[in-house]
Amino acid sequence: MIAVLKSGTTPEQTAHLINWLKHMNLDVHISEGQEFTVLGLIGDTSRVDMELLGSLEIVDTVKRISEPYKQASRNFHPDNTVITIGNAKIGGGHFSMIAGPCSVESQEQIIAVATSVKEAGADILRGGAFKPRTSPYAFQGMKEAGIKLLLEAKKATGLPIITEIMNIRTLDLFEDVDIIQVGARNMQNFDLLQELGKTKKPILLKRGLANTLQELLMSAEYIMSEGNENIILCERGIRTYETYTRNTLDLSAIPVLHEITHLPVVVDPSHATGKASLVPSMAVAAAAAGADGIMVEVHNNPACALCDGAQSLTPAQFADLNARVQRVREAIL
Amino acid sequence: MIAVLKSGTTPEQTAHLINWLKHMNLDVHISEGQEFTVLGLIGDTSRVDMELLGSLEIVDTVKRISEPYKQASRNFHPDNTVITIGNAKIGGGHFSMIAGPCSVESQEQIIAVATSVKEAGADILRGGAFKPRTSPYAFQGMKEAGIKLLLEAKKATGLPIITEIMNIRTLDLFEDVDIIQVGARNMQNFDLLQELGKTKKPILLKRGLANTLQELLMSAEYIMSEGNENIILCERGIRTYETYTRNTLDLSAIPVLHEITHLPVVVDPSHATGKASLVPSMAVAAAAAGADGIMVEVHNNPACALCDGAQSLTPAQFADLNARVQRVREAIL
Amino acid sequence: MIAVLKSGTTPEQTAHLINWLKHMNLDVHISEGQEFTVLGLIGDTSRVDMELLGSLEIVDTVKRISEPYKQASRNFHPDNTVITIGNAKIGGGHFSMIAGPCSVESQEQIIAVATSVKEAGADILRGGAFKPRTSPYAFQGMKEAGIKLLLEAKKATGLPIITEIMNIRTLDLFEDVDIIQVGARNMQNFDLLQELGKTKKPILLKRGLANTLQELLMSAEYIMSEGNENIILCERGIRTYETYTRNTLDLSAIPVLHEITHLPVVVDPSHATGKASLVPSMAVAAAAAGADGIMVEVHNNPACALCDGAQSLTPAQFADLNARVQRVREAIL
Amino acid sequence: MIAVLKSGTTPEQTAHLINWLKHMNLDVHISEGQEFTVLGLIGDTSRVDMELLGSLEIVDTVKRISEPYKQASRNFHPDNTVITIGNAKIGGGHFSMIAGPCSVESQEQIIAVATSVKEAGADILRGGAFKPRTSPYAFQGMKEAGIKLLLEAKKATGLPIITEIMNIRTLDLFEDVDIIQVGARNMQNFDLLQELGKTKKPILLKRGLANTLQELLMSAEYIMSEGNENIILCERGIRTYETYTRNTLDLSAIPVLHEITHLPVVVDPSHATGKASLVPSMAVAAAAAGADGIMVEVHNNPACALCDGAQSLTPAQFADLNARVQRVREAIL
Repeated sequence: MIAVLKSGTTPEQTAHLINWLKHMNLDVHISEGQEFTVLGLIGDTSRVDMELLGSLEIVDTVKRISEPYKQASRNFHPDNTVITIGNAKIGGGHFSMIAGPCSVESQEQIIAVATSVKEAGADILRGGAFKPRTSPYAFQGMKEAGIKLLLEAKKATGLPIITEIMNIRTLDLFEDVDIIQVGARNMQNFDLLQELGKTKKPILLKRGLANTLQELLMSAEYIMSEGNENIILCERGIRTYETYTRNTLDLSAIPVLHEITHLPVVVDPSHATGKASLVPSMAVAAAAAGADGIMVEVHNNPACALCDGAQSLTPAQFADLNARVQRVREAIL
Repeated sequence: MIAVLKSGTTPEQTAHLINWLKHMNLDVHISEGQEFTVLGLIGDTSRVDMELLGSLEIVDTVKRISEPYKQASRNFHPDNTVITIGNAKIGGGHFSMIAGPCSVESQEQIIAVATSVKEAGADILRGGAFKPRTSPYAFQGMKEAGIKLLLEAKKATGLPIITEIMNIRTLDLFEDVDIIQVGARNMQNFDLLQELGKTKKPILLKRGLANTLQELLMSAEYIMSEGNENIILCERGIRTYETYTRNTLDLSAIPVLHEITHLPVVVDPSHATGKASLVPSMAVAAAAAGADGIMVEVHNNPACALCDGAQSLTPAQFADLNARVQRVREAIL
Repeated sequence: MIAVLKSGTTPEQTAHLINWLKHMNLDVHISEGQEFTVLGLIGDTSRVDMELLGSLEIVDTVKRISEPYKQASRNFHPDNTVITIGNAKIGGGHFSMIAGPCSVESQEQIIAVATSVKEAGADILRGGAFKPRTSPYAFQGMKEAGIKLLLEAKKATGLPIITEIMNIRTLDLFEDVDIIQVGARNMQNFDLLQELGKTKKPILLKRGLANTLQELLMSAEYIMSEGNENIILCERGIRTYETYTRNTLDLSAIPVLHEITHLPVVVDPSHATGKASLVPSMAVAAAAAGADGIMVEVHNNPACALCDGAQSLTPAQFADLNARVQRVREAIL
Repeated sequence: MIAVLKSGTTPEQTAHLINWLKHMNLDVHISEGQEFTVLGLIGDTSRVDMELLGSLEIVDTVKRISEPYKQASRNFHPDNTVITIGNAKIGGGHFSMIAGPCSVESQEQIIAVATSVKEAGADILRGGAFKPRTSPYAFQGMKEAGIKLLLEAKKATGLPIITEIMNIRTLDLFEDVDIIQVGARNMQNFDLLQELGKTKKPILLKRGLANTLQELLMSAEYIMSEGNENIILCERGIRTYETYTRNTLDLSAIPVLHEITHLPVVVDPSHATGKASLVPSMAVAAAAAGADGIMVEVHNNPACALCDGAQSLTPAQFADLNARVQRVREAIL
């Protein structure tokens, strides 16, 4: 870590600051120039409060040289992490297609969709049981019953399942769930992250609506620092001023994360765009950019012609998409 | 609620949609123009999933006429809500100055700061015991011991106290806390909100970094829908591309919220700007814009000359600020 | 266009508004519901000032049904526009690779890069002569001399050239330039757009840093409304809170624009990401998402080992990228 | 300027870079630590391309110590700039209220509004003659005729006038205009800025929708570097994800700009919020935050009851606002 001191800082102030830093068990390397003084802080700087340091009167800038995350960093773990879930693998060249309905609605629905997406090539079944909703009056999911139906669909098809947790007090219900999803709104629910770190379950951690990639890795670090290294990162769109799409899908997150972390990266184009017509293009683009997996919403309501335009794909659209994704993956090798 | 159908929608599709809406116990008023058809949905539309409806193939736009929040809406509750905490009142013309350190660090510190800010005119003491930190390696607060020290400071000064909750499992520790704060990162931790709704404690709800004012009111509605109407809203800066300030303080939130809700609005210029030199200007601006309270960080480290530049004010700076805020409040009457 | 009136609007106010609208040669179709009144405006609404209408006391919302752009709209022009530049074509299934240095620096440099990128498969040569720079003290490009060198490179290689215009007073210099680029900062320099509309030159119009896709099409409409239909749209990243990349490349712009306009869409991953290591992934992703062309920076400084890490690719990296882009284009057919 | 080199940089690479920097007439001060090497660049670094330097393979970070703007910097010019326009002054403790209609529409209108706002205490008359409009089909202003009417209103009332320029070719028309406004969309129209720098006219420079405060000062520097130091900066709202207000007014810009520049700062709450009901609160807040002037839209259409809700205030509302602003200014002394 480097701290640049403002010009005009007195020797007493500098000495005072260095003394303070040494009390934090840091070595300080001083470089005095004509116009500025640079302090190099050597030791375990992960515990230094950069914001506090940067807000001191005499400090112009603070710059981390080593990342604030360790276990998530590729520097400390050069090989790609591969997450194995049943027959599916994600990361290190392995790719998984995750598909299923937005919400579990009934036994008939989830079994039908699970069967369809398996036929169309999905590796993992998704489905919401606990649904975070902006409004307290909106449908909040089937909850426990929804998880039971997902487990029935798992038994019927052999597909591993992923579903979202919202509250650590429901953790027992997730015993047979294969991947636990942490939603965008909970990316910085640090108590939830720490508790999930005490399990060995694979965790799919979604990027928050206004969170940087570094903050995403810091949240992964919360889980990893408790002992759980089975983390899948998920880009699902960030909030910008553009309103044509629900969010703005930041596909550059894929190569960036591959540079700085060993954890696999999955993309969710359904929630990012909010429009079924845009999902296939963004799914193949994610594959081309090197994603380790794609998670898309697929519904199966032959009786509901209305629903064709929602953000969910039909099984036929999903099968077509899957074929194109596989071809693109071969093309970029 | 109004749904505009796309041109080219067939009568069958329209009939199908109307049928679906009527199954949700809504009356549908149809207005057919040459270029478009508008459906007016009448009844309890708060349960209608606007996103789903808007994503249907045949639907061009969905527009809510009545707000999706009810108990938080000024339409349903024209009079300003006034929250009483000990001798302090917030809302409806009453103004409170909330001050104290970022974190509780020691008995000596919190008693000293509490005494100072009381003398300088503060109405309520703030101090962090549970600290949400981006990094798992950063200081996470004194936790339970911090709350005990705040209670000692309350006893010593008579000031009511406010401190943040991060996990509903710690609720028992907040029994003698006067106002429970929900931080920006937990604004959409819906399970936490619902549990706080079951208490009668005043809740200070901070706006999330990337949340709209409507989403802030929906989160207030989560608490209110469980029976707790003692809510104070807090603007604390939103995330934008500008990096000179830590966040961008959106002071227009004050008059906007006063138009659409009866709940009081407090502003936190310390976290918003991240720089002590900017706090006084933004505090008086907030008062001028009609805020019902201001929450600022004040420290009291005469031995630590280094800390003078942090986002915290000294007691003397706070006393000066308080005097200017009171003068501005008189000027805008 | 639809205007929803607020509940509580009096019949006199409604009549007053309708009268005002009829003076603008619009027919007004009234639909009165219990809770709201909807006015449908029929006729040429492209001249209605939506912001003014929406800001009236009695108006709740205004919603355009038809787009505010006409000539750029796919509704009015279903077939894809194909732009032909020498042997290169962009749009309607035709794809062009545009490559070259950020700035023209010398005859030797531009001829060398032009020769390299042609060998590596580029269709069009890019190079900056007039450079918009944030600082008045930074290098502003070789200006007229730079354009002359580009023309020499065109003659030497046969590649058509594209370069940026900043000021309509320099238009004469662009007589032999094949595509005139309008930079992001000038996307809403309406006088410049109108003057370019009076030429027949192909115009590459870059999306502004904070502009919506609708605003991009409105700027295209400025050019088209003066008679020039040869427009190529360019996505080059938008400004968000994320700082790891210079801007956030919004690849969903590609399928969105293909839905709503017939104009071709090119992507510039070099400026969007600012990092050479990210350019190849984002270029193949853009191709996978259906871009009609890609514009990348390529330098050719064998003597300058330092420059290898800049946002520019080496000719060898570009050749490799080009091969992968072509494979991806075949994969998505 | 400081450049931090990545660990693993070879001595040859470092030497190569230093050599390159010395060719730019910079002295380089080297500080080698165990984990990093820091280069201090001494000399005229305003010409160094920070982006290029930062993008080099071996460079981790580049940090400016001195600001990239000089003439606009308070460091180089500690005293506040005061702009004198007729009887009005802006800056250095002097405050001006600028008021008038959005667009000049007729002789009757502009004379009536000018008379009203003068009576209500305005110091300067605003009015749009050239109007930048998103759509080519929208009303673009009365242009030359509009400026003539403004000059009539100036003669009738004695108020100095401000109006916007969009194209340098119309500069002759602004000979008797007192302040030339550069709109948000032209903030980085560098050729326009340079030409205005050759005049001696006071320039009101609006912050762009997605521009940082540093970029605003760099644009001021473009004007100042040509010899014109009469610049008034204007905060008018930035583009964020929040849609309740048209833009998000960043009032922290006022104290920030006062810290880093000597130029006066004016705030435009009318365009920022887009709603008349929010304008008074934000105007008094701007005054409380230390603005050197406020620019508000005022109309005067007694016959047009419809217009009462627009973003413009009535003369009576403006008179009331002006009185409150003056009281707030006294309160913060």
